Amino acid sequence: MDIATRVYNHKWKIDPIVRSLIDTDFYKLLMCQSVFRNKPDTHVTFSLINRTKSIRLAELIDEGELREQLDHIRSLSLSRGESTWLRGNTFYGKRQMFRPDFMEWFENLRLPPYHLEKRDGQYELTFEGKWPEVMLWEIPALAVLMELRGRAVINDMGRFELQVLYARAMTKLWEKIERLRDVPDLRVADFGTRRRHSFLWQDWCVQAMIEGLGNKFVGTSNCLIAMRREVEAIGTNAHELPMVYSALAENDEELALAPYDVLSDWHEEHDGNLRIILPDTYGTRGFLAHAPDWLAGWTGIRIDSGDPVQGAETAIAWWKSRGEDPKKKLVIFSDGLDVDKIIELQARFGDRTRVSFGWGTLLTNDFRGLVPNDALRPFSLVCKAVAANGRPTVKLSDNPNKAMGPADEVARYKRVFGVGEQTAMDVLV
Amino acid sequence: MDIATRVYNHKWKIDPIVRSLIDTDFYKLLMCQSVFRNKPDTHVTFSLINRTKSIRLAELIDEGELREQLDHIRSLSLSRGESTWLRGNTFYGKRQMFRPDFMEWFENLRLPPYHLEKRDGQYELTFEGKWPEVMLWEIPALAVLMELRGRAVINDMGRFELQVLYARAMTKLWEKIERLRDVPDLRVADFGTRRRHSFLWQDWCVQAMIEGLGNKFVGTSNCLIAMRREVEAIGTNAHELPMVYSALAENDEELALAPYDVLSDWHEEHDGNLRIILPDTYGTRGFLAHAPDWLAGWTGIRIDSGDPVQGAETAIAWWKSRGEDPKKKLVIFSDGLDVDKIIELQARFGDRTRVSFGWGTLLTNDFRGLVPNDALRPFSLVCKAVAANGRPTVKLSDNPNKAMGPADEVARYKRVFGVGEQTAMDVLV
Repeated sequence: MDIATRVYNHKWKIDPIVRSLIDTDFYKLLMCQSVFRNKPDTHVTFSLINRTKSIRLAELIDEGELREQLDHIRSLSLSRGESTWLRGNTFYGKRQMFRPDFMEWFENLRLPPYHLEKRDGQYELTFEGKWPEVMLWEIPALAVLMELRGRAVINDMGRFELQVLYARAMTKLWEKIERLRDVPDLRVADFGTRRRHSFLWQDWCVQAMIEGLGNKFVGTSNCLIAMRREVEAIGTNAHELPMVYSALAENDEELALAPYDVLSDWHEEHDGNLRIILPDTYGTRGFLAHAPDWLAGWTGIRIDSGDPVQGAETAIAWWKSRGEDPKKKLVIFSDGLDVDKIIELQARFGDRTRVSFGWGTLLTNDFRGLVPNDALRPFSLVCKAVAANGRPTVKLSDNPNKAMGPADEVARYKRVFGVGEQTAMDVLV
Repeated sequence: MDIATRVYNHKWKIDPIVRSLIDTDFYKLLMCQSVFRNKPDTHVTFSLINRTKSIRLAELIDEGELREQLDHIRSLSLSRGESTWLRGNTFYGKRQMFRPDFMEWFENLRLPPYHLEKRDGQYELTFEGKWPEVMLWEIPALAVLMELRGRAVINDMGRFELQVLYARAMTKLWEKIERLRDVPDLRVADFGTRRRHSFLWQDWCVQAMIEGLGNKFVGTSNCLIAMRREVEAIGTNAHELPMVYSALAENDEELALAPYDVLSDWHEEHDGNLRIILPDTYGTRGFLAHAPDWLAGWTGIRIDSGDPVQGAETAIAWWKSRGEDPKKKLVIFSDGLDVDKIIELQARFGDRTRVSFGWGTLLTNDFRGLVPNDALRPFSLVCKAVAANGRPTVKLSDNPNKAMGPADEVARYKRVFGVGEQTAMDVLV
């Protein structure tokens, strides 16, 4: 028994869920640097959205505990070791990915205030302020809510019940890893920070992937875990960039160009494996059809909504139409993946293009079926930019069930981006 | 990280499997006290017998490691706390179960030498000397061999593979416990010391039973675990008593009486729940048919071989024939139990007599199906008294596959005890 550790642990008033500002997704930091450079003074609002209404978070999670966790996050600042790692590490083969002016700003950052209210059994949690600051709330806020919900369920379980719960979860993950081990040319990364069961569990998952998959495991989106476990930090960019850029557009003409403006800014800052197109914010087909030629030269496309087979076929056909060789391109699948789908997609596209997988919630939070009433099953919680400089944001996606924004604005965006009929697909996670 | 503990652990030259003289079955100590009183100078030989020839222990287990473990056991002596627990504890409601003269002897005991050779891929491991000393080798010798075999298999596994192995084993046990939880009036004890996967695993199993079964878990045969986990130590007597008493008989008449002499000695020393008949050493039917009437007054019967349903029916019929009420009697099942059989037997006999279960190998070593080639499956290893004062011992049992002894002596015993046709049953563990 380690008395000192026990005594030390008792000193914490709470058991903090997020203990580091780099316990977040790598792409958040990349996007933050881009925003810090290109749109530092944009005023944005991020808001929590629980798409799974049946899980009444405000009844499960104590408001006081939630505030304590969020307050703890506001007390965090970048540690010297974390800063050293960000400044000194090689990301995607490149040193000094983070510029000195950004690092100086980040070292002095504390996260801005939050607004929390209960309504209809749910929490309304919003963050307002300058874009580069507010955007860094997304991942820790989601991780805190997911983990507090898990703690609430686990609270009534005995010590051995708990051991068995984790034994089952470990067994489940390991059986997935054993299946993936046999997939030739597989490249899979952990994208599961935001909806993980808990930090310790995500950390275990990553270590299990390192041991079980060897070099088929290419890294994790979580910077803290990448640092500690000495693996690659993985990620590029996300929907919030086109959503905010689009909200800032003054008219329909500007709106139609906004998603390309995002990538034009990105093009100036990054090359190689960081040039990954996320085409689905306002419909993949229209986006690619109207894309400038320099985008066809980018390294790859990330498929994050809609039917992934169709998405990849669309990408491959587009590259061909622009005279590019799909075999030299990279398709990253990242939407609702689990082992069956990974194996199917690898088999289908593995010899037609380069394929990679960002495996999220069903890697780090597949507690389905492990407790009565399935009370630990993952659910669809997001935290999105909902407004920029006072204007609402809109997301259409390739799946109308993932769309968001005011109805009139959604209609306008559909018109501007020429989005027709879409197929609705269930959003599990 | 607990540095001191790690450094301390590095000080061990080996990782000892048996670290206490009371890491043994309670009935061994009860029998030892009886032998110490009644037959202290009998010279016996105990010998290891691996009934599962396909598992070639001498190829799996390094001889040097085996010797180190056995030598370590020879260095053990009763600690002050262990002695205090044996002297001060209440066993089966009785204080001072162990007499002062026995305790004084036990406190000064070191286990006698062993003889170890390799032959045909197996170890020949024998212990010779005074019965009260030699008999205490049985359980630690078996536990060491079982655990070294497990370590040999586990040696090539990675850290996460190991975590998952134990995760699966925990899950498997917990699912058994969950099934047993719903069995009304269940009384089950851990009898799994000798063929456990490892000490730590047995200790985990006992703790899981405590939490999962509540008062349906009545205790463990393992004294060290009973002491540490503050549960009842469980057990009465075993085949070695009639086997050695019978070997000492000078002629057929004495032989026919020997099994009853054992219980006559026991009758003088113990009452209540310790008066449990083990009737199968030379066939249950004959033993009961010829038993003196005072034996019918004993508390119960333990069924340790043959068809358990038939064994219990035989016991119930015998009690009735002697004017006893079976509802006041106790039937203890202890042969090759697992959950299905426990549930079946409880359902069948629960309202006809008092029922209790001694759950052994498939409680503490059910690693079946958990690694490739089933290399961790439990197997049938025993350590038996094979000779007493220069004469061979014989066991017939209610299952000819469990019989042992030289062929001519087996024939003689069958004649003396009137054992006819027997049904052979597989011996899994």
